[in-house]
Amino acid sequence: MAEITRDMLGRQGLTRVDEALEILLARLGAVTLETEMVSLSAALDRITARPIISQEDLPAHTRSTMDGFAVQAVDTFGASESTPAYLRIIGEVVMGEQSSLVVDRGCCVRIPTGGLLPAGTDAVVMLEHTVPIDESLIEVVKAVGVGSNLIAPGEDIGKGSPALPAGYFLRPQDIGLLAGLGLDRVEVHRRLRVGVLSTGDEIVPHTDIPPPGKVRDINGITLSGLIQRAGATARLYGIVSDRRDVFFPALEKAVAENDIVLFSGGSSVGMRDLGEEAISTLGNPGILVHGVALKPGKPIIIGLTGTTPIFGLPGHPVSAMVCFELFVEPTIHHLSGRAAQNILPQPVVCARLGRNINSAPGRRDLIRVRLSRQDRGWAAEPVLGKSGAITTLSRAHGYFIIDEDSQGLTQDSEVKVILYP
Amino acid sequence: MAEITRDMLGRQGLTRVDEALEILLARLGAVTLETEMVSLSAALDRITARPIISQEDLPAHTRSTMDGFAVQAVDTFGASESTPAYLRIIGEVVMGEQSSLVVDRGCCVRIPTGGLLPAGTDAVVMLEHTVPIDESLIEVVKAVGVGSNLIAPGEDIGKGSPALPAGYFLRPQDIGLLAGLGLDRVEVHRRLRVGVLSTGDEIVPHTDIPPPGKVRDINGITLSGLIQRAGATARLYGIVSDRRDVFFPALEKAVAENDIVLFSGGSSVGMRDLGEEAISTLGNPGILVHGVALKPGKPIIIGLTGTTPIFGLPGHPVSAMVCFELFVEPTIHHLSGRAAQNILPQPVVCARLGRNINSAPGRRDLIRVRLSRQDRGWAAEPVLGKSGAITTLSRAHGYFIIDEDSQGLTQDSEVKVILYP
Repeated sequence: MAEITRDMLGRQGLTRVDEALEILLARLGAVTLETEMVSLSAALDRITARPIISQEDLPAHTRSTMDGFAVQAVDTFGASESTPAYLRIIGEVVMGEQSSLVVDRGCCVRIPTGGLLPAGTDAVVMLEHTVPIDESLIEVVKAVGVGSNLIAPGEDIGKGSPALPAGYFLRPQDIGLLAGLGLDRVEVHRRLRVGVLSTGDEIVPHTDIPPPGKVRDINGITLSGLIQRAGATARLYGIVSDRRDVFFPALEKAVAENDIVLFSGGSSVGMRDLGEEAISTLGNPGILVHGVALKPGKPIIIGLTGTTPIFGLPGHPVSAMVCFELFVEPTIHHLSGRAAQNILPQPVVCARLGRNINSAPGRRDLIRVRLSRQDRGWAAEPVLGKSGAITTLSRAHGYFIIDEDSQGLTQDSEVKVILYP
Repeated sequence: MAEITRDMLGRQGLTRVDEALEILLARLGAVTLETEMVSLSAALDRITARPIISQEDLPAHTRSTMDGFAVQAVDTFGASESTPAYLRIIGEVVMGEQSSLVVDRGCCVRIPTGGLLPAGTDAVVMLEHTVPIDESLIEVVKAVGVGSNLIAPGEDIGKGSPALPAGYFLRPQDIGLLAGLGLDRVEVHRRLRVGVLSTGDEIVPHTDIPPPGKVRDINGITLSGLIQRAGATARLYGIVSDRRDVFFPALEKAVAENDIVLFSGGSSVGMRDLGEEAISTLGNPGILVHGVALKPGKPIIIGLTGTTPIFGLPGHPVSAMVCFELFVEPTIHHLSGRAAQNILPQPVVCARLGRNINSAPGRRDLIRVRLSRQDRGWAAEPVLGKSGAITTLSRAHGYFIIDEDSQGLTQDSEVKVILYP
C-alpha cells in the first residue's frame, strides 16, 4: 500500500485520478477566452461563444407536412369510409411557390409535403385518406381537424427563441440548423493554443539517426496530433535541454505564448525535480499535483502559473498519451468553453478480456487492448510491451479502465472498451 | 407489406440497406486512387498507400527496461535473500549516453530505465532486488538470467518488418510510431473529392431571406461538414435548378470533377425522375438502387457512372444525413483505400428507450435520440418532429437502429445508441 500513499520521490501521497483533475479544474474557473466571428463554412468543430437566438419564425408560413389535399377542415367533419365527403379539386400547389388560389367551402387543392397552404384552407387531408372519383373530384374518407397535417408559422422555432446554447460544440447538422435560420456567421471561442516542449538530453529530432543511447522524439508529434483532435492548436517548441538555463526560459516563453503548456520527458529524477522547480518559480499557485495513482502515467506533474495549466507528462509515449487523454483533453475542453455537451457518456465496445489482469487497489489502471472478432462478439487482448518499446503505441484499438476499488479482472470478464478515435 | 416490395413509384422492390450498399461496393472493386507523399505533420487522419516497413532495428542497441544495476547474469546465479550475491558498483550509466565502462565479473553499474547496457553486461537486476551495503557495494537478493530486464536490438521492431499495413487510417499515436522509426514523410492516398449539388427550385441560398414557399439550403453545408468529417474534400456546386437543361450539365460537370457526387433535394416525383434519367444518361452502369427499405431515407437513388458513384439523397436534411451515414460514408471509406481498420465495431451507449416505437417488418428504422441521465444509466428519448422541421436536426445526440426483422421496441427496452461525433 506504500505505493498508494507516497509518490515516487516519497514526498507526498499519490493523488487519485478524479481528484487530480478536480483540483486543477476547480482553480481554472469560468472561461474568459476571446471570441471571434466565423462563417458557417469555417464553423465546424468550433464552440459557440453565446446562445444562438432565432431571428425569425420558422417556418415563416404555414406548410403541409403530408402529400394530400389542402381543405377547409369543416368540410370533412363526419367523413368516413361509409359516409365520405366530396370535394372539388380546383388546382394544385406547386412546390416552392405561393399559390394564388383561394379555396372556398366544398373545394380543395392538391398539395405536396412542404407546400405552402393556399388562402382559405386550414388543414390537409392525407392522400391515403382520399379516393379519386375523377380528375376534379375526390372522396374524403376520414375527417381532419383544423391544423391537421400542417406546421404553423414559428412552430419549428419562434423568433427570439434559443436554437443552440453557449459552449456548444458545432457538428455538421448544427451548422445546417444555423443555415436554416439564415445565419451566415457565428460567434465562437478562439481556438486554444497548446505549447509542447520535448525535454530530455537523450532526445533527438525524429529526422535524425540517433547516436547510441539517444532516442527520437515521438511525443512532440503524437501530442501535436492529440491536441489537434481535441480542437486546439499545437505549437511545438522542439527539443529542450534538461539544463536549467535552457529549460526555465523555454518554459517561461511557452507559458507566455500559450493557454496550456505541456512538457514531456523527464523520466529521470533530476528532470522531475527540474520540472517541479520550474513550475514553482514561474508563479503561483505552482504545483497542484505531483504523482497520480494511475498506471501508466503515475509520474505526471500538474501545475498552474497564473491561469495557464502546465502538465509535466511522462517521457514514455504510451504514458504521455494516457495522461493526455485523462488530464489534458478535459482541460482543453474546459478552457475551450465546451460546456453544453459535457454530460454525454462515453460510447464503448463490450468485449471479453483475453487474459487475467491484476491491478493494485487504490490505483486506476488503463489497459490498452487490441480487439478481434470472435464467434460471439469481440475479444480484447491487452497490448503489452517492454518499457521503451514503441511499436505497441499503435497496436491498441482502445482501452478499458480498472478502477481504484478493483484488484483486477479475470480472463473472459466483460470489459467496456473506449476506442481511440 | 406493399411498402416492402414496391418503391414509391411502384416500379420495383425496395432494396434492403445492407444489400443496397453491397450492390454498390461490389461494383467499385479495388482502389486505384493516386498517392502523394506528405510530411508526418500533415499525415494525421490520412490513409497509408502501402505498408510501412521499418528501415532499421529498434532499439538499435540493448537497453535496460528497469531502474537497477547492469550485471553479468552469471554473478547472480543462486542469489537469494538468505544467500545474496555481492557486487561492486564501478559507475553509472547516464541516460542518453554510451558508457565507456567495461564491467568485469563481480562488478556492476547503476542503470536507469532506457539506459544503454555497458560493455561486459548481459542482464539488469531491478533496484528492488538489491540492498545497498555502502556507496560502492550492493547485495543482490534475486538471481537473473541472461537477457533479463533488457530489450535487445530489433526486439521492438526488426529492420524490414512491417510497422503499419496499407490502407491504414493514421491516428496521432501511429504518426508517433512513424517518427520513432525515423520517417519524415509517408505515402498516403490523396483525399477523395466529393461534389455536392443542392437541387430543387424551392431552395434558396442560406444567406437569403426566402420568399413565401421557398426554403433555405441546409443540405449543402451539412453534407459539406459530414464529408470533411469522413476525411474527404467537399466541393459545393450550389443550388442547381430542377430544369433538365440546367441539372444535366451541372451533374455531368460534377461527375467529371469529383470521385463521388451527391445531389440532394428532389423530394418531388418529377425531380426523382429527373435524377434517375440524368444518372442513366451519364453512362453505364447507371442506376443501381432506387428506393431502400429504410426510414428515414427511403427515396435514395444510388447510381454509378463509370467509376463515379452518384447518390440522389432525400431533400429533408435529417433524411439526407441518415443516407449519408449509411451509404455515402462507407463509400468514401472504401474509395479512400481505408481497409485495415474496417473490422472495428461501432462503440455504443446503452440506454433505456423513453417510449414505444413501432417499426414495419422488412424495413430498417433509424431512430434519432436525445440522451439524458437517469438514476441508473441513460435514457434515450426519440427526437420527433413534423416533416420539414429543422430544429430537430441538432437535437439528437445519436441514433439506434431497429432491424428489418423487428416490429418495434417497447418503452424501457435497452437500445444501443451510436453517438454523432
